[in-house]
Amino acid sequence: MTDPNRPSDHAAQPDGVSRRRLFGLAGVGALGVGAGVAGGLAVARATDGDAGAAQTALGQPVAGPSVWPFYGAQQSGIVTPAQDRLHFAAFDLSAAATRDDLVRLLKAWSDAAAKMTQGQEAGEFGALSGPYDAPPDDTGEALGLPASRLTVTIGFGPGLFRDSAGRDRFGLADSQPDHLQPLPHFPSDNLRPDLTGGDLCVQACADDPQVAVHAVRNLSRIAFGTASLRWSQLGFGRTSSTSTSQATPRNLFGFKDGTANLKAEDPAAVDEHVWVHEDDDPKASWLAGGSYLIARKIKMHIETWDRTSLSEQEQIVGRDKRDGAPLSGGDEFTLPDFEAAGRDDKPLIGPVAHIRLAHPSQNDGVRILRRGYNFADGNDELGRLSAGLFFIAFVRDPDKQFIPLQTRLSRDDTMMEYLQHTGSGIFAVPRGAQPGGYVGDTLLA
Amino acid sequence: MTDPNRPSDHAAQPDGVSRRRLFGLAGVGALGVGAGVAGGLAVARATDGDAGAAQTALGQPVAGPSVWPFYGAQQSGIVTPAQDRLHFAAFDLSAAATRDDLVRLLKAWSDAAAKMTQGQEAGEFGALSGPYDAPPDDTGEALGLPASRLTVTIGFGPGLFRDSAGRDRFGLADSQPDHLQPLPHFPSDNLRPDLTGGDLCVQACADDPQVAVHAVRNLSRIAFGTASLRWSQLGFGRTSSTSTSQATPRNLFGFKDGTANLKAEDPAAVDEHVWVHEDDDPKASWLAGGSYLIARKIKMHIETWDRTSLSEQEQIVGRDKRDGAPLSGGDEFTLPDFEAAGRDDKPLIGPVAHIRLAHPSQNDGVRILRRGYNFADGNDELGRLSAGLFFIAFVRDPDKQFIPLQTRLSRDDTMMEYLQHTGSGIFAVPRGAQPGGYVGDTLLA
Repeated sequence: MTDPNRPSDHAAQPDGVSRRRLFGLAGVGALGVGAGVAGGLAVARATDGDAGAAQTALGQPVAGPSVWPFYGAQQSGIVTPAQDRLHFAAFDLSAAATRDDLVRLLKAWSDAAAKMTQGQEAGEFGALSGPYDAPPDDTGEALGLPASRLTVTIGFGPGLFRDSAGRDRFGLADSQPDHLQPLPHFPSDNLRPDLTGGDLCVQACADDPQVAVHAVRNLSRIAFGTASLRWSQLGFGRTSSTSTSQATPRNLFGFKDGTANLKAEDPAAVDEHVWVHEDDDPKASWLAGGSYLIARKIKMHIETWDRTSLSEQEQIVGRDKRDGAPLSGGDEFTLPDFEAAGRDDKPLIGPVAHIRLAHPSQNDGVRILRRGYNFADGNDELGRLSAGLFFIAFVRDPDKQFIPLQTRLSRDDTMMEYLQHTGSGIFAVPRGAQPGGYVGDTLLA
Repeated sequence: MTDPNRPSDHAAQPDGVSRRRLFGLAGVGALGVGAGVAGGLAVARATDGDAGAAQTALGQPVAGPSVWPFYGAQQSGIVTPAQDRLHFAAFDLSAAATRDDLVRLLKAWSDAAAKMTQGQEAGEFGALSGPYDAPPDDTGEALGLPASRLTVTIGFGPGLFRDSAGRDRFGLADSQPDHLQPLPHFPSDNLRPDLTGGDLCVQACADDPQVAVHAVRNLSRIAFGTASLRWSQLGFGRTSSTSTSQATPRNLFGFKDGTANLKAEDPAAVDEHVWVHEDDDPKASWLAGGSYLIARKIKMHIETWDRTSLSEQEQIVGRDKRDGAPLSGGDEFTLPDFEAAGRDDKPLIGPVAHIRLAHPSQNDGVRILRRGYNFADGNDELGRLSAGLFFIAFVRDPDKQFIPLQTRLSRDDTMMEYLQHTGSGIFAVPRGAQPGGYVGDTLLA
């Protein structure tokens, strides 16, 4: 049996190309069907609906680094080098849905995700090859586009185990992980119920937003009658790196974000801080090899920040804006020296600088795997951009990692004056499915 | 003097590479300052704020095909090969703004756009080099990113000439073009006032959304006190090609969209259908060499469409879904044969097929330059995706081109059952600025 506590093979894959290729090799079907350059834009995808095709792709990129596997010890989309774009969606199960419906849905989602991540169309017949008088199995807008490093990561909210009235709708209450509880209220929270919670989540990441949107749309279509979209979010410009092969991107405060993030190339740290271990929670051993996904929609008060001096911005962050180096000196990857003092013996990194409050050395060694994205949703009635950070983190133990960290930040961090948390969700992300299985079968089968 | 009726030089530039480069050559300052590969991700941009740098870039891509000029006979972003991403923004001038404020704003916007399109930072000092105790001139989130083929296109709404009460706020009423009037109500309209209108518009297109968002954000910041965001929209996956070097992309109905679009490589047609001519409107000769931008936010009833048969979908569109070929036969670029009949002598392309109703041969030869994008804004309370088409078109004469076409489509096109127009705007887009000048100086100087 595969060790569920080991990052899946692809995490350590040396080719960490993180940008869409000009003329990609992606999207080539596993059986080599239908490959060919179309219009110089992209590569045609396999258009036959052979379910076997996806299954031969087990655990391995089918055709180079722009395709990630769906099947494997872990779900892709966690330690996978962060793609450029996100479509995140939370779903609620319908009032009438049964446990059988839930299993059918997870099987159908897993099958469709296995195909779409390989650059193939969803469903038995895909977009074009089904009965002419029936709605197509796939909505078609990704035809001709490469797989674009699509990953689809599926998670389970607390409501799957006990609904808001405490009912055990699917006979799963006894398997609810201790740590899978709605997050507590944090001081800076102003959560909107319509952007919070959800029985299921889908995190679709790809280098092309059309590919990520196509994935969520088709999973939503497949769920029709069983589950419906509760809330969803598009993101761009990943705000953290999950591989040492990626440069650190900037968030909408203009600062490099995620410098100290956990990286796939440090499997021991990932194992310690991201993957749930077999003995973490005896009644939730089904989650071994999985993780917890925490999503937070964080609106930034962009206009206020933009009227703050460079000096103040750097003091708040605790890093310099140009290179991301700690204010104690060095370069981006130099460890911050929280003792270093400047004029008047004042610490170079202030007592409530973000970098200090969030640093593992100040938080009992807590580390998290961040995988967030920027967002911009238009503007409010006062002409302020509705933009910010769609924070996503993967942790082994929300109660020991995210909750104490966020409690401290939301209480002390000056940056909070420029932030408002408006959406929130927590989901248990099972280990990866094996061919013939489905995501969640360790819980439901 | 440059002939304003000629597409600017870059339109005919042979290198039509339309995808972000893996390791771009873009973002190199015009004076060769600060070029160097950073972290394998992108190229550093010039970080000095030398205003002369942008001006040496006049009318020419600075460093290859991933940088478009800001200055030139026409504004970039019209016949420029459509980039992958859009941030569109409409602004209202504040009640207190004067004509001098308007001129100052347009000068400042032009200066900032000239820099940002060349991969430089906005403002005299940029993001990092200003006084440490002052807010930075540039918000910084595009630092380290290439120019990403950014174009910034500025337009003037009817309200600039006469406000909604008919007042001539800026002494411009006598120069209002006859064709610059709020669009009439179309049968399928369900416009939201907060997504409609605007005194000014900015169309920022780039291959990287972070770069497009950065542009709109900084122009909005510069406008603070003079103008504020009224509405704005992010878009992805361009839905039309404006160059023969681009493959035709698919809209969210899954069909290739924009096959018959005007292309930059046909300058005679562009001249006839896009650019305003000197003698088109004697009292608006300032608009010669410019165009009209029409924006429509069109929500698609995705879920309903997805439950329609492939046969029905193709009948509604009049093209096949796989290749985009007309149902009368051939390939994508074969001219449709509206007389061709099939079984029972029924026309292969039905009487109300979209392709028939929209085709120039059925509309007195009317052609438009489409430059729209897909969008996805989350979902509604019923779990339906809030997604669709953000339609943008450039025309020489809205009254002869867009209005009759849209009147016919909104009345007869079966596709309208799957669409709802929720936002709308019309803007006069002046010719391009010359170095030392600004967009709109032919009207205001």
